[in-house]
Amino acid sequence: MSDATITVLPGDGVGPEVTAQALQVLHAVEELYGHTFTVHQGLVGLAAIAAEGVAISETTFETCAHSDAILFGAIGSLPAGKNHSGGPRPEQALFRLRKEFGFFANLRPVRPVESRYDASPLKPEYLKGTDLIFVRELSAGLYYGHLESVPGKPSEIRRTGDEAEAIDTLLYTSHEIERVVRTAFEIAADRGGKLTSVDKANVLSSSVLWREVVARVARDYPTVTYEHMLVDACAMGLIRNPADFDVIVTENLFGDILTDEASMLTGSIGMLPSASLGQRRTESGSFGLYEPIHGSAPDIAGQDSANPIGAVLSAALLLRHSLGLHREASAVEKAVEDVIHQGYRTVDLHEGGCTVIGTQEMGQRIRDTL
Amino acid sequence: MSDATITVLPGDGVGPEVTAQALQVLHAVEELYGHTFTVHQGLVGLAAIAAEGVAISETTFETCAHSDAILFGAIGSLPAGKNHSGGPRPEQALFRLRKEFGFFANLRPVRPVESRYDASPLKPEYLKGTDLIFVRELSAGLYYGHLESVPGKPSEIRRTGDEAEAIDTLLYTSHEIERVVRTAFEIAADRGGKLTSVDKANVLSSSVLWREVVARVARDYPTVTYEHMLVDACAMGLIRNPADFDVIVTENLFGDILTDEASMLTGSIGMLPSASLGQRRTESGSFGLYEPIHGSAPDIAGQDSANPIGAVLSAALLLRHSLGLHREASAVEKAVEDVIHQGYRTVDLHEGGCTVIGTQEMGQRIRDTL
Ligand SMILES: CC(C)[C@H](C(=O)O)[C@@H](O)C(=O)O
Ligand SMILES: CC(C)[C@H](C(=O)O)[C@@H](O)C(=O)O
Repeated sequence: MSDATITVLPGDGVGPEVTAQALQVLHAVEELYGHTFTVHQGLVGLAAIAAEGVAISETTFETCAHSDAILFGAIGSLPAGKNHSGGPRPEQALFRLRKEFGFFANLRPVRPVESRYDASPLKPEYLKGTDLIFVRELSAGLYYGHLESVPGKPSEIRRTGDEAEAIDTLLYTSHEIERVVRTAFEIAADRGGKLTSVDKANVLSSSVLWREVVARVARDYPTVTYEHMLVDACAMGLIRNPADFDVIVTENLFGDILTDEASMLTGSIGMLPSASLGQRRTESGSFGLYEPIHGSAPDIAGQDSANPIGAVLSAALLLRHSLGLHREASAVEKAVEDVIHQGYRTVDLHEGGCTVIGTQEMGQRIRDTL
Repeated sequence: MSDATITVLPGDGVGPEVTAQALQVLHAVEELYGHTFTVHQGLVGLAAIAAEGVAISETTFETCAHSDAILFGAIGSLPAGKNHSGGPRPEQALFRLRKEFGFFANLRPVRPVESRYDASPLKPEYLKGTDLIFVRELSAGLYYGHLESVPGKPSEIRRTGDEAEAIDTLLYTSHEIERVVRTAFEIAADRGGKLTSVDKANVLSSSVLWREVVARVARDYPTVTYEHMLVDACAMGLIRNPADFDVIVTENLFGDILTDEASMLTGSIGMLPSASLGQRRTESGSFGLYEPIHGSAPDIAGQDSANPIGAVLSAALLLRHSLGLHREASAVEKAVEDVIHQGYRTVDLHEGGCTVIGTQEMGQRIRDTL
């Protein structure tokens, strides 16, 4: 029996729709397994800017701080042009949560459903055996270059007359590299698998340091085979031989790019969940933030057509990593797999003779299958 | 009748093998069309370090400077660990050529052969109509962060006791952005097509400036439709809807990653050519450097199994852009397409009932088809 506090931040666009389904799945788990989840809600992103004038308010931040886990939807973007106006930007909510809560490891598992490989643009024979997990560094690198105070990333565009110059800084300390690499080795050891560390060591100093730290940490994990791979080669390898990968660890921006690409192995970015974890412990796991990897997709918001699976699988990761409810997490994952296997799909997935259903029906079917 | 000087820098690994085929294709063009090409050869990369102690010697550099075009093979890497030892690194040759000759625009066309879509890991229906070209910025960004003197990029790893910190700088001036964006708009206008500008404007200051410059330059090209896209979305879109792209312009490292990924649309990185161009004019075109986008692939070097098509198509780009020989360039491209269509492939391509042939035979067949 678990007694846990969860803060839900639905955010913008399709965020509220998909989070609603994920939350209902959590409630179903609560009932089925006899747990008690106390749920708080808060605003983030454009929704928070509109209502509270900031991308995330202090109150919301505090509510998160006193929870075991955060279930996050998606945040929108400002219209182009307003992006650097100096006002609050929706992304700041995410950057602040990641940074201040020390969420340095972002786990993004990618596992296409075997009986439904046809959902992907790739030929089935290329997908055979694909089951990988990214460990993306989440609290340093270019995302935090020249970040002087956390909530407001100052403009680093310098203007002289008609000319302008913009600078971003890619900085990593060996400590920042080591903690995320260690997390990745732990996961690889648990899976009895291998680790691919991705960098651009033929160009970047930070990647040279990255390789050095990986080689050092590797000595503590003699059972794990590891390799270094350049980011360009990895972008290619993910399509050419996806089954060759097991655990992939990489820096923040490379992880951002490669995971969106890898979502195509499942057929849609709407399928992928993520867990952001740090040092802080809860009673039976890690304090964490859980979000689908897709964005707010304002063009399809409010149409009951968004894929809730990324959000639902994020809730499964929440059960596992923050609440220590492993059986429940696996049950949710199994229910998703079953519904996909039965031939139900949201419109983002290649139809392939399947039955196309809406956001809510997908959520309902997953709950019914639990 | 053209009278041109070409410097060939075969480099390392499979570089010499594929360049040899490309050069023979150029000689075939010379004979068939009655041109005179004066060819010089030089060392670069590991080959140059071994023989001359530097990644590219002053003499070789000067020879290049007095040519109309450079045909480049591939350069190897130092073994991991030796990468930051302070000695010469093979990549420096490439960085120096790109920087000192002002090659700011790197063109990378991607056009899978329609009758042979099965060479790709993607399903044929996803490839239908794919014909795109990348314009990658090549002389700024993270590649040149903290570059104090061109040939030796100083180590930016700072150590204090057991701790270390590494910094790379992503810097763009509006001038550097404008010239490459203008090149991309020119190409889009020529193709009667559209332009996708790829950045990470929700995170990077340099991308915010990038968008601003794109919007400004766009006013000079009212016939070209353009859009902004985030790099993560593009990494996904290239697999999901490759035919939706036409001309893609992006900064240096994003271009590096995305073009390797996009090579999978053709089935192999061995298929893709590139042209690096700057301001300098030759008699009938631009001074340029032409190289396949693949690397030195030391594991398969010397086995007559490398795919020479990327190198041969690079020679075609050389004919077009540096020598103004449009008809000849198209003839080479057509010959490559015909040989692929006839069902000949090197081993890097998915076999699919085709005849697998070696590097030399592939070169020979292309020449015979000319
Ligand atoms: C919304 C954006 C800032 C974010 C990122 O780049 O990290 C998103 O793409 C992600 O992957 O979580
Ligand atoms: C060899 C390497 C430095 C180079 C690059 O990163 O530019 C290569 O990957 C390329 O794409 O030309």
